[in-house]
Amino acid sequence: MEKKNIIYAHSGGVTSILNTTASSVISNARKHGIHTLIAQHGIIGLLHNNVYQSANLSDNDLQRLSNTPSSVFGSCRHKLPHHKDNPQAWDNFFTTIKQHNADAIMYHGGNDSQDTTLKIHQAAQQRNIPLQVYGIPKTIDNDLFGTDFCPGFPSCAKYLINSIQEASLDTYAMSKSSTKVFIMEVMGRHAGWLALSTGLASTTKDKGPHLILTPEHPVLIDNLLSNTKKMVESYGFCVIVASEGIIEQHSQQRFSQHNQVDAFGHQQMGGVAAKLAQLVQENLHYKTHYAIPDYLQRSAGHLRSTVDVAMAKKLGETAVSYYRQKAPDCLLGIVRNQTSWDIAPSSLDIAANKEKTVPSSFFSHDNMHISNTGRDYFTPLIQGESYPTYQNGVAHYFDPSILKHHNIKEYAE
Amino acid sequence: MEKKNIIYAHSGGVTSILNTTASSVISNARKHGIHTLIAQHGIIGLLHNNVYQSANLSDNDLQRLSNTPSSVFGSCRHKLPHHKDNPQAWDNFFTTIKQHNADAIMYHGGNDSQDTTLKIHQAAQQRNIPLQVYGIPKTIDNDLFGTDFCPGFPSCAKYLINSIQEASLDTYAMSKSSTKVFIMEVMGRHAGWLALSTGLASTTKDKGPHLILTPEHPVLIDNLLSNTKKMVESYGFCVIVASEGIIEQHSQQRFSQHNQVDAFGHQQMGGVAAKLAQLVQENLHYKTHYAIPDYLQRSAGHLRSTVDVAMAKKLGETAVSYYRQKAPDCLLGIVRNQTSWDIAPSSLDIAANKEKTVPSSFFSHDNMHISNTGRDYFTPLIQGESYPTYQNGVAHYFDPSILKHHNIKEYAE
Repeated sequence: MEKKNIIYAHSGGVTSILNTTASSVISNARKHGIHTLIAQHGIIGLLHNNVYQSANLSDNDLQRLSNTPSSVFGSCRHKLPHHKDNPQAWDNFFTTIKQHNADAIMYHGGNDSQDTTLKIHQAAQQRNIPLQVYGIPKTIDNDLFGTDFCPGFPSCAKYLINSIQEASLDTYAMSKSSTKVFIMEVMGRHAGWLALSTGLASTTKDKGPHLILTPEHPVLIDNLLSNTKKMVESYGFCVIVASEGIIEQHSQQRFSQHNQVDAFGHQQMGGVAAKLAQLVQENLHYKTHYAIPDYLQRSAGHLRSTVDVAMAKKLGETAVSYYRQKAPDCLLGIVRNQTSWDIAPSSLDIAANKEKTVPSSFFSHDNMHISNTGRDYFTPLIQGESYPTYQNGVAHYFDPSILKHHNIKEYAE
Repeated sequence: MEKKNIIYAHSGGVTSILNTTASSVISNARKHGIHTLIAQHGIIGLLHNNVYQSANLSDNDLQRLSNTPSSVFGSCRHKLPHHKDNPQAWDNFFTTIKQHNADAIMYHGGNDSQDTTLKIHQAAQQRNIPLQVYGIPKTIDNDLFGTDFCPGFPSCAKYLINSIQEASLDTYAMSKSSTKVFIMEVMGRHAGWLALSTGLASTTKDKGPHLILTPEHPVLIDNLLSNTKKMVESYGFCVIVASEGIIEQHSQQRFSQHNQVDAFGHQQMGGVAAKLAQLVQENLHYKTHYAIPDYLQRSAGHLRSTVDVAMAKKLGETAVSYYRQKAPDCLLGIVRNQTSWDIAPSSLDIAANKEKTVPSSFFSHDNMHISNTGRDYFTPLIQGESYPTYQNGVAHYFDPSILKHHNIKEYAE
């Protein structure tokens, strides 16, 4: 019987442990003589037959890959049409699958991406094509149903928690004669998981963050300003963490949508942090600084959670094991047992196109900080520090340009 | 003969290794039976007699202090009057010195702060007060004369170099179907040391940062846009690092000063990164993301340069040694010997109120990247990774609230 291949792909916003799972899939499959092909830029690579082979990646390469943030294979933001709406796209897709002799696809992404996984599953069934379809969860937003947490989130949270502790010490030091309010804008358009997790840095009330603003709880500006003033009067300074997707209570508009157009008709670029800083400075006259870590937070390979890294590896191992057992198509969900985690199949439609917001029990009574229940959820996720190796003072990451020589077209020549 | 004390103080924007020198001064002085007092919030503490004693800090406390970024004693931005202009302030200052039986002050800060050191030296001479005055250099801006580099800069640069490598990998991964341009705004109002140092992340031309904008070289917008386009066309994406103080060539205005007032007469908060992103999006129509690490860059205790940490300790040790030898008042300058460094006295007025910009030989021919001469300067500074210890997933830093019990007033009771 002819040996089949696995196709693996990244999709959506990247994380610092996507490559860790990629490396784990490749090496675990290899142990069983199975070859993994990796789509270039997710589903786009599969629509255009751009696929990397992995056979020439050495153990050293795979080790380096495992320690490298982002996706060296490329990710994508691409909404697949339904198989009824654009049969040509699906013809291309299945041609690629067939050409590469693949009988399984492992699609690694968040809620939009799991919509893709679901559509692949449906299209394969529709066309009676024997294809095992596994979704692997991922997103720093932590907003997927069907899994206790989303791989990538713990490392991002750990980075932000430690960063806000450091910025809080900074603001404290400056507060006597300079900056009194510091604001950090974190990712999270619809859910406040990342923002709320930073509450772990505040082990006593005087330590920042003092106020946490999330999309779950629309912001009343007067309330925010009076709380900010109270913190400055109590502790000498105030540290605020805000999700990028916070909503103003009266207008029910996002902060990032306010004043979208300036006097010249230009799109305003200023985000949430800039607007909050402006509010504080104009109304309270405190000197304010703000940070927007943006991509730095989700690709911070220099400080990853060991728990996150371990689960990323386990997901790769389990996906290969499901493939070998011919387990039914599913999303590989993570199930918590106290402070350890197992992997169990969730249905493919559980995560697609839905966003899990933070439970109300995770918030303090005023909805502006973390509760003990919240701490109990987040704390186990950020345990352990995983560091990359360094060369000449710079993290020695896997160089994507190596892959030019692994493109299947070139390889086939 | 009565035993005298040392007074030590932090001043100006903080760094991730200020406390390392503080800890080194305290422990090295202690070895010789000398007690170190630390001013609360720099010169402000000395004007208002707010001083911490260090006798009760255990070896464990000092070890933790050494690993903690920012300043747990507090820093300040406070311009001291000349001793002729405000004798009362100076009376207060010398009363504090006398009351605490101090015969030396070690003032740890950047160019504004070394103006303070110089004024203290002059005022003491004027009043015939026997006070040994030592300036200890510090600033992430790296813009002090009289020293090969400024402690705090190497760690900040190391953090930014590694962060931009990570963000570059992120942008590469997304570039096929989403973000094509990423901009990081770094500190540096008058000098581009930090921005230019990030060029070390770009070991080959395809790796970001592709373009580096500094205050030394005013930006021609058409040139910036055409270069950005060229990079996207060559590599699929473009990563730009810009100092906060860059200047637009035609107007000779800072980017951060443009459109200062919006339609409502409000101060615009948007900084350099937001404005560059707007320019790229409006003119080139590339999806753009930007990061502003702000305080995260200068207080990133979770990733410090071992070279920086070692020099921070050596500065504390040398300052105590100068004190014991009754060395003349000076700035403790750092002198480079190939890839190691010594400490040698510089004159106190060499650093005050002056800003050392980046030499033109450190720039590539187009002034938008680093030259090999630049690499040779920066590379030795970022060697080695110094990590803090962690507790429960969070860096276990020295808690400034411990010091409440070390305030000299309370201590005296």
